[in-house]
Amino acid sequence: MPTPTLDRFFQVCLPAIEEELRLAVAFAGGPGLEALHGMLAYHMGWEGETSGPNASGKRIRPLLVLLACAAAGGEWTDALPGAAAVELVHNFSLIHDDIEDNSDLRRGRPTVWKIWGIPQAINAGDAMYALAQLSVLRLQHTASQPAALQAAVILQQTCLALTQGQYRDISYEQRHDLALDDYWPMIEGKTAALVAASAEIGAIAALADHETCSAYREFGRALGLAFQAQDDLLGIWGDSALTGKSAESDLVTGKKSLPVLYGLEQKGLFALRWLAAPVEPADVPALARQLELDGAREYTRQRADELTNAARQALERANPQGEAGQALVQLADWLLGRNM
Amino acid sequence: MPTPTLDRFFQVCLPAIEEELRLAVAFAGGPGLEALHGMLAYHMGWEGETSGPNASGKRIRPLLVLLACAAAGGEWTDALPGAAAVELVHNFSLIHDDIEDNSDLRRGRPTVWKIWGIPQAINAGDAMYALAQLSVLRLQHTASQPAALQAAVILQQTCLALTQGQYRDISYEQRHDLALDDYWPMIEGKTAALVAASAEIGAIAALADHETCSAYREFGRALGLAFQAQDDLLGIWGDSALTGKSAESDLVTGKKSLPVLYGLEQKGLFALRWLAAPVEPADVPALARQLELDGAREYTRQRADELTNAARQALERANPQGEAGQALVQLADWLLGRNM
Repeated sequence: MPTPTLDRFFQVCLPAIEEELRLAVAFAGGPGLEALHGMLAYHMGWEGETSGPNASGKRIRPLLVLLACAAAGGEWTDALPGAAAVELVHNFSLIHDDIEDNSDLRRGRPTVWKIWGIPQAINAGDAMYALAQLSVLRLQHTASQPAALQAAVILQQTCLALTQGQYRDISYEQRHDLALDDYWPMIEGKTAALVAASAEIGAIAALADHETCSAYREFGRALGLAFQAQDDLLGIWGDSALTGKSAESDLVTGKKSLPVLYGLEQKGLFALRWLAAPVEPADVPALARQLELDGAREYTRQRADELTNAARQALERANPQGEAGQALVQLADWLLGRNM
Repeated sequence: MPTPTLDRFFQVCLPAIEEELRLAVAFAGGPGLEALHGMLAYHMGWEGETSGPNASGKRIRPLLVLLACAAAGGEWTDALPGAAAVELVHNFSLIHDDIEDNSDLRRGRPTVWKIWGIPQAINAGDAMYALAQLSVLRLQHTASQPAALQAAVILQQTCLALTQGQYRDISYEQRHDLALDDYWPMIEGKTAALVAASAEIGAIAALADHETCSAYREFGRALGLAFQAQDDLLGIWGDSALTGKSAESDLVTGKKSLPVLYGLEQKGLFALRWLAAPVEPADVPALARQLELDGAREYTRQRADELTNAARQALERANPQGEAGQALVQLADWLLGRNM
């Protein structure tokens, strides 16, 4: 559970984020376009079967935008168009990723392409992309024209980085010679770039100076990388990956995660087994133990720790102010599982 | 053939457009990303088998940006980032449309998805989209910050309109009750929006006043609609649609074009035959004749004429200056087949 300070921000900011998102997505609708709007509203978790908070995701990225804005001395409400923009970029990329990865389910519900087909789903993702960019440009009305331009450039560079990370991820599926060095560029694009942009755009909306904006960016980047390393750890040694749901273990899905790439590079017993044949759920406990014996669990934990420390240090350099500053520290701790 | 004045602009501007496009697309590359860049360079017609001008398309939209800028009193070189942006948006949408329409060929070459598969092609289109938006934002360096913001908002609204038009187009495939009223909103999004944006962004890069920018926008919009009506006419009664290549006739591909929708609304002999069974190439000459007897050819020609006149009038209101102004008039005539 989030701490009281962070929880207060959740309670105030999340409804405002949701309202801003609904306003942004409404631009896709209009006469004869109700069904297009409906696809986007379904994906955002607002419509259709089992809609609601569980279908929406946690809205961590937009919250990070608002907290960074407030902690950098701005009014968090001024950053709302930026907050909506990063969440819409995240969701545009999910709609397309689900097609590219052939995923039937997202947050427990059928994916957009499973319901409406690939052509409409590609197009709905493109519409979400355009809505994101229109949203970030509205920072010209709440912050300033130069801030809006700066944030728009950062968001576009982030979208480019997302596609570069996704290009690597897709192309890795064909490769059997992957090394640790292949991991970080993929994660920088797929995960870290958008978290870095979220923190930076918040600071930009507060009209913070260049150095402060850079420190927030670095905080977001390290936080994103640390979170991914942590997530990779749980994907193999987390409770649900080892027990009941071992079919969902990263060892079964074949995900090229940090521990797996480390394990392959050791060329030990894990690597031998991994390269021999696909992993069945029944193999998971023994293979996870072998991967741990080959040093991958310790290695991944160390990387996650280093990155967490780097995130802390960057946040100190950003010198976050007030309750929002405390909430940012708590958000990082919460995301990295430090208070569980 | 273009007239001498227009031809001079072609010769000076096209190499500059190509250079700006190459600079813009280079941002997608980098270590380990050569193949991603290669997909985009292939689609742009620069690499791969049968690369060259025929594989690149005519670059009409970026030329329109530059001519509008010069005719509105600006330096055409200042508009180059805007010119590259509209061409990249056009090509992003082609990469995705080819997947959505299941098209194997584009400008006589295999489409991106046919070569690299659907996942990489969706992602390559997304990368092209991001490059387009980064390009338009560079107008802040060649024109001004407010001009760049204004152009970026217009380009994003255009991208949203493209997806709305494409949504209609895809959803029309399932419908048998289409009427003339369904045609124009689809074409406004799929064709007219980007031509309108091209002319308007050129005027914005020239820092023209609001009224002039609107006149250029209206010129582009009417030009785009007129061009589409003309194209629909040629798709049924053009030489190649009626003779040798009748397999490519819009009557065979089943395209919901303006004459077809008019013909369906007459509920005459054409409509009876169209709704009865798919059209074979051998049926084309007789069916085209029937559609003409039902009044569709004359109706479409009248709409094209009205729209052409509207484009002329809007261009007069824009009061285009100098040789670029003459070239714009000639470009419109050339596109609408008036000097052929």
